[in-house]
Amino acid sequence: MTDTIISSATREVVIGFDRPFVIIGERINPTGRKIMAAEMMAGDYSRVIADALAQVEAGAHMLDVNAGIPLADEPGMLAKAIQLVQSVTDVPLSIDSSIVAALEAGLAVYKGKALVNSVTGEEDRLETVLPLVKKYGAAVVAISNDETGISQDPNVRFEVARKIVNRASDYGIPACDIVVDPLVMPIGAINQAGVQVMQLVHRLKTELKVNTTCGASNVSFGLPERNGINAGFLTMAIAAGMTSAITNPLHAEVVKAIMSADVMMGHDPDCMRWIRKFRADPVMGADGEMGRGRREGGSRRKRE
Amino acid sequence: MTDTIISSATREVVIGFDRPFVIIGERINPTGRKIMAAEMMAGDYSRVIADALAQVEAGAHMLDVNAGIPLADEPGMLAKAIQLVQSVTDVPLSIDSSIVAALEAGLAVYKGKALVNSVTGEEDRLETVLPLVKKYGAAVVAISNDETGISQDPNVRFEVARKIVNRASDYGIPACDIVVDPLVMPIGAINQAGVQVMQLVHRLKTELKVNTTCGASNVSFGLPERNGINAGFLTMAIAAGMTSAITNPLHAEVVKAIMSADVMMGHDPDCMRWIRKFRADPVMGADGEMGRGRREGGSRRKRE
Repeated sequence: MTDTIISSATREVVIGFDRPFVIIGERINPTGRKIMAAEMMAGDYSRVIADALAQVEAGAHMLDVNAGIPLADEPGMLAKAIQLVQSVTDVPLSIDSSIVAALEAGLAVYKGKALVNSVTGEEDRLETVLPLVKKYGAAVVAISNDETGISQDPNVRFEVARKIVNRASDYGIPACDIVVDPLVMPIGAINQAGVQVMQLVHRLKTELKVNTTCGASNVSFGLPERNGINAGFLTMAIAAGMTSAITNPLHAEVVKAIMSADVMMGHDPDCMRWIRKFRADPVMGADGEMGRGRREGGSRRKRE
Repeated sequence: MTDTIISSATREVVIGFDRPFVIIGERINPTGRKIMAAEMMAGDYSRVIADALAQVEAGAHMLDVNAGIPLADEPGMLAKAIQLVQSVTDVPLSIDSSIVAALEAGLAVYKGKALVNSVTGEEDRLETVLPLVKKYGAAVVAISNDETGISQDPNVRFEVARKIVNRASDYGIPACDIVVDPLVMPIGAINQAGVQVMQLVHRLKTELKVNTTCGASNVSFGLPERNGINAGFLTMAIAAGMTSAITNPLHAEVVKAIMSADVMMGHDPDCMRWIRKFRADPVMGADGEMGRGRREGGSRRKRE
């Protein structure tokens, strides 16, 4: 089995084929969030901290942290964000930047074994990011595009993933420390995008034997009721073998779909996580219909 | 490809691997519905008619009709229910009874090519139901249990399905007129029930090349928030190749999951069915969050 272990100073998360799906909260990212970006530029990280806590409360097992603001001191801001987030929660982090110096600044202050987000199949990325991953003993997200862009042919994307895994091996990074993002196309534009990704995830699991992740919301780009599409996509991706996703845990519909998929895959023994989360309020009917109230069952344990 | 064609006097539904999933509405069934049973005994079929119309409105492509009331004249009541339902809607019907005389009474009055629900692998069922299916040129649901009961071993259930397909062939009934129900165990009791069904559906599709159906709600027996489990199950079953289900289309969460699965499978070209159903109300935000209002886009066309 392929277990990818990510940790904070005090907590470990394992991404693996026979384990519950790992939700990596995507919200700490100033891209497209003008208020967060302005606050971070002004040295105010209160929204970063609030988003960290809210996502963990909503079910995130890990958090992605990105400080990508144009013309800003991204290395310094990413390092600060990571230190602050690690001061308020013990879930492991994904350090997210397209700037290598920012990745290094984040890794330098991170406590534990981080997930570096990301390396691609581009030569300059491979040659700069992989040494960092090795130096800090991290794991890394491998995005299956290269200098030629994102191929619409899933077989080409598979070969890019294979190239990254092989190159990482040259640097002494084992396949279990690589989490491949097969890249999901918008289903509104490419009718076969869903089927392609399922086949690709299956090949990544059975042939390269690597864990997988994705930015789950790209699939629904341009469509109404996006969470419904994202939920269906994630359920099918999990059936095909996908083991984590970078997504928004505040979308209850998506988290519910993931938890249901864990039940169906046999990764929620005795359905205990499902029952704890959805145990009905006694004042409600037994019919399981809409509009029912819920309560959390006791203290919801986080994934260890 | 395996296309199972079911029809009314004026409408055809095709169950097939490359087609949208077929929802067979389950509501017209007095089992466990005391009021409906009492009304039907008293000759009042208004609830049957109302349930037929509501299910079609909610997205059912076919309707299952059952009149199983202990000690009642089931053949006469089933025939009457079928005639009434066919007088108010043109969706094709599944004629549902465990009594052969009732199946025959239903078939005798049915206009079109019905789906007979069901035959099992039990010798006496095979020898009485299959000749009826052949006589009326119907299709039939084949439930994969036999005299020994329901095996927990999916390989045994597969062999029962194979036996039914072979026996039907002896009667001149082609495999495309058989829709196998692989039988879904409660996931709360059998942790591997979901994985087993997916493997079984895949084998039924690739080895026996038959369409499949199921009573989808059995999987969530005993669990809270059953529709969430049913939605996850159906999504994964569709990914594995399941092509229809007998379920409750009034559960919006389940219908939404099925429609999302159709999108992901590439069975909703240009996502037009999804867009028609979920096109956002212009007064609502573009964020795709919960609580949004919806409107149906024009007249929602039924599956032809």
